[in-house]
Amino acid sequence: MNERNKVTTEQHAREQALVDKVVASFETAEDPRLKQLTQALTRHLHAFLREVRLTEAEWDEAIRFLTAAGHITDGKRQEFILLSDVLGASMQTIAINNEAYANATEATVLGPFFVEGSPEIPLGGDMSFGAAGQPCWVEGTVTGTDGKPVPGARMEVWEADEDGFYDAQYDDDRTAARGHLFSDQDGTYRFWAITPTPYPIPHDGPVGALLAAVGRSPMRASHLHFDVRAEGKRTLITHIFVRGDELLDRDAVFGVKDSLIHDFVEHPAGTPAPDGRDLGDRSWSSVRFDIVLAPANTTGAGE
Amino acid sequence: MNERNKVTTEQHAREQALVDKVVASFETAEDPRLKQLTQALTRHLHAFLREVRLTEAEWDEAIRFLTAAGHITDGKRQEFILLSDVLGASMQTIAINNEAYANATEATVLGPFFVEGSPEIPLGGDMSFGAAGQPCWVEGTVTGTDGKPVPGARMEVWEADEDGFYDAQYDDDRTAARGHLFSDQDGTYRFWAITPTPYPIPHDGPVGALLAAVGRSPMRASHLHFDVRAEGKRTLITHIFVRGDELLDRDAVFGVKDSLIHDFVEHPAGTPAPDGRDLGDRSWSSVRFDIVLAPANTTGAGE
Ligand SMILES: [Fe+2]
Ligand SMILES: [Fe+2]
Repeated sequence: MNERNKVTTEQHAREQALVDKVVASFETAEDPRLKQLTQALTRHLHAFLREVRLTEAEWDEAIRFLTAAGHITDGKRQEFILLSDVLGASMQTIAINNEAYANATEATVLGPFFVEGSPEIPLGGDMSFGAAGQPCWVEGTVTGTDGKPVPGARMEVWEADEDGFYDAQYDDDRTAARGHLFSDQDGTYRFWAITPTPYPIPHDGPVGALLAAVGRSPMRASHLHFDVRAEGKRTLITHIFVRGDELLDRDAVFGVKDSLIHDFVEHPAGTPAPDGRDLGDRSWSSVRFDIVLAPANTTGAGE
Repeated sequence: MNERNKVTTEQHAREQALVDKVVASFETAEDPRLKQLTQALTRHLHAFLREVRLTEAEWDEAIRFLTAAGHITDGKRQEFILLSDVLGASMQTIAINNEAYANATEATVLGPFFVEGSPEIPLGGDMSFGAAGQPCWVEGTVTGTDGKPVPGARMEVWEADEDGFYDAQYDDDRTAARGHLFSDQDGTYRFWAITPTPYPIPHDGPVGALLAAVGRSPMRASHLHFDVRAEGKRTLITHIFVRGDELLDRDAVFGVKDSLIHDFVEHPAGTPAPDGRDLGDRSWSSVRFDIVLAPANTTGAGE
């Protein structure tokens, strides 16, 4: 893997001299962090180019790939986030910034479908807003790592419908399968959602073409997104996954963590719902997700 | 510089496990080169993220940067090439693919302003097509590394005008300071150009903002572009630079090589031109550039 095995000493020296020159060009940066980032980026980027001996045709292809990613990206589609996701870079950034802390719930990727300004729902309300899918009762507690309940935690939840699309992916400006609520005085919460189903990340662009070229599936394991914020706590951005889902070990964006896999219990049609809601002839599911928030002064998102 | 110095053993293991998982996801690639490229990209990208401990806010900023680069890129503007250029990645790719071969002329970056379909000019013709600038007589020979003349070599030449713009940067579809010609039966060539002057790379986009943030100049050292192709020879993409130019040691794209710096001789108004052309009351310059092409079977562009 060392390019020195493949090139002459003279060639190695020429390539290294160029790296040194580029690194030195960032010495003028006044912001020490920006200097560190640009110099490290230079070193790792050049190490990649030199290790693989990138050809000029491959460089052309990389420019075309980035250009196509830029051109498909708009207010509703974010190909660069998808690229970061399928390379595991999003998940690695999450890992770096959300070190395990005691028994705190683990974080995972935000994904490209979070949208600001979701509707508020009451405790026990329905965040599906008519999105297609099996009703799913979600309940649990929000506590600190000290075990104390966290009342008034703001919980944002969002998910794809059973056709595999988030509301933002439709052209009709609908708001569905997206909402926020606040935990109760005793830290408990409950709401109606829809049972998560697998969906592909958008794969009609360059990232999808890359996945196809390497034989990878664009499918994500079924999940429900959470963003939980409370004063004095580390913000938690995570998902819950469905135990038994075939895609758990090949999630397209590497978002699955064992601790985030939960039992979604199936209830046949006619089984009374926890809140007495009349579900007619529909079956439903239920899941319990007890959320544990780390203190705000630990490494985490949103700080 | 080693992330293991900063994080717990457990955290290090979690991060490494993610890298291994992403690398493994590319094992299904049927094309061995694509497998190699994607796996190496994964390793180097994650090594960067882990070394600098990229924050989530910095990741957001990177996504915004790439998005802005994508949106400013169109048929006339290529921000991703500029990004590659200012990070030295373009020049490194050139270095990797154009190893020094005997006394062959060295290569440098193509740059973002090459346009297909330039007009042909005769030997001794004028490629400026009215572009603003001091007339410059360019002459030399094209030979192989064996010293033998190369007749009929196709030479494409292009440059910025004295206002610092390539024709493609104007909105009026002009063709100027761009052309191609063929070396003579004895391998010699000659044409009128304009004396190269410094110009900034386009810096009103995200790449320009990055350069400003790190205190780097967007200026390129004065140069004239060449693309020289001949049967049985390695394609040469290069520039010639102007000896004495203050920008030689801080070219924005790291394109300068000592061997490519040439003497542009100044001739006062009234000095007879080599081809008897009447230049009226204008001064002019002249430069000699003897081009030596490596054999086609050596590492090089266009193969
Ligand atoms: Fe999702
Ligand atoms: Fe140029």
